Amino acid sequence: MSVLIVGTTALDSIKTPKAENPRLLGGSASHAAVAASFFAPVNLVGVVGNDFPRKYIDLYRKHDINLDGLQIKEGKTFHWSGEYEINMNNRRTLLTELGVIETFSPDLPKAYVDSPFVLLANFAPALQNLVLNQMKKPRFVVADSMDLWINIALPDLLKLLKRVDGFVLNDSEARLLTKEDNLLTALKKTHKLGPKYVIIKKGEHGAILSSKQGLFLSPAYPLNKVVDPTGAGDSFVGGMMGYLASTRGSVDSNIRRAMIYGSVTAAFCCEGFGLKSTIKTTRQAIDKRVKELEKLTKF
Amino acid sequence: MSVLIVGTTALDSIKTPKAENPRLLGGSASHAAVAASFFAPVNLVGVVGNDFPRKYIDLYRKHDINLDGLQIKEGKTFHWSGEYEINMNNRRTLLTELGVIETFSPDLPKAYVDSPFVLLANFAPALQNLVLNQMKKPRFVVADSMDLWINIALPDLLKLLKRVDGFVLNDSEARLLTKEDNLLTALKKTHKLGPKYVIIKKGEHGAILSSKQGLFLSPAYPLNKVVDPTGAGDSFVGGMMGYLASTRGSVDSNIRRAMIYGSVTAAFCCEGFGLKSTIKTTRQAIDKRVKELEKLTKF
Repeated sequence: MSVLIVGTTALDSIKTPKAENPRLLGGSASHAAVAASFFAPVNLVGVVGNDFPRKYIDLYRKHDINLDGLQIKEGKTFHWSGEYEINMNNRRTLLTELGVIETFSPDLPKAYVDSPFVLLANFAPALQNLVLNQMKKPRFVVADSMDLWINIALPDLLKLLKRVDGFVLNDSEARLLTKEDNLLTALKKTHKLGPKYVIIKKGEHGAILSSKQGLFLSPAYPLNKVVDPTGAGDSFVGGMMGYLASTRGSVDSNIRRAMIYGSVTAAFCCEGFGLKSTIKTTRQAIDKRVKELEKLTKF
Repeated sequence: MSVLIVGTTALDSIKTPKAENPRLLGGSASHAAVAASFFAPVNLVGVVGNDFPRKYIDLYRKHDINLDGLQIKEGKTFHWSGEYEINMNNRRTLLTELGVIETFSPDLPKAYVDSPFVLLANFAPALQNLVLNQMKKPRFVVADSMDLWINIALPDLLKLLKRVDGFVLNDSEARLLTKEDNLLTALKKTHKLGPKYVIIKKGEHGAILSSKQGLFLSPAYPLNKVVDPTGAGDSFVGGMMGYLASTRGSVDSNIRRAMIYGSVTAAFCCEGFGLKSTIKTTRQAIDKRVKELEKLTKF
């Protein structure tokens, strides 16, 4: 089954203590779509400017990502620039140029509206709502978000949360949203906002799912070296939704394993700048790490 | 089989944003010994002053902890006082009165020297070495330590590390000791200092074991409320060593499960001030949470 993914399609300029990488392919939808593409057909929704490099279009195509929903507009592609500190955990934004995203109005191709799985990757919640308005009875809708939207677009986000099945956020965002330090309490408070499935991402420490089936503690795949964590959270949720779309049976019976697949895909993402490492991986390499993770956690 | 535990036997005055608890039973050996006592006979080595409350001696006895190696000296019991910040993760030391610990020289009762399992809980590495000198061919020796000893007694600690089978430290201590930010690299570097089993504790995020069998990612038991994390690390390693001492077969075949038992015992520790919650638990309650943790991590 296919998964529709909407989010930012961007150019990322990433600085670390060791390297500078200008105008890489980035954005929540790009990371999530490539991650999901290892498992299921992806319908991408987004917007880029006419400065968007041809090679990035080719990269999406190489991953069989359907681009009928990618608008190419007169103007500049959304450009984000950030700098990581030496431990690769703390980063600061140097620059944000919205470009064509500022006036973006998603208009879904007909073939998209029946996608059974929908990932509203990190984006303005008003736009996530607009996409959801156009969908016909999707089977499973998950939204991701970020601190920015909690701070500046909370009413839109709260409206969205009443409409989605699942919500994914990281630990600091969960604390910001719920004003709760304890993550189990934060999970409970987030359920009260609507979603039946709440996942809190904890970066290198894995993720926690809370649903009617109880909690699931998902481990992260341990890495010898983190080159660039940009997009890891998007890869996690993209891999998870792609894997879910590839399975038979209920979401409940597959979501734990889907999170493991998401974790492994996110680990590949961290091993290179932007999407450089993700695009070099294969379904076989992902399966191998999932098996390793089984061994690393068995007791 | 029995486990010998040496470390501090102290009075802890613990302040949190919500409460003040003066002169609780504390210290690395107290927490580790009570944790281990749920699984195996414990031989305690330590020193207290003649101000040490009778009720704490009774508490050790209630847990069948052998006190032949506990010296009661003229003077004051080691007293530590600390204050936690609102998130219960950051703490600062308000006061440290060494008391009788300053002149402590461990002298092991004859019945102790054959203990097959030895836990050198957090203590001055010179004293940990002194205890180890008196042991006859122990089967499995594990040491714990802290940032203080890495900073002020590194030569003694390095000497100790060449003599122990296992070493347990937390993530920030691992980074301090190895000057490595990546934990997998820090594990490798710590192996080079001697121990064949290295465990890095990550608090609420669980622990990682590195051994010849590879890595093991041990989850932490998720808690709705952390009342006081003092002694959680000691409870973890105490529970682990106690469980190991209770099992047949090789350390390799039992250590993963032993870490899970340690995690669960540590979780109970966090639910009350000092040892208040730990002493209320039972082996049955621990087994129940271990089973829960199996369910929470299965995929």
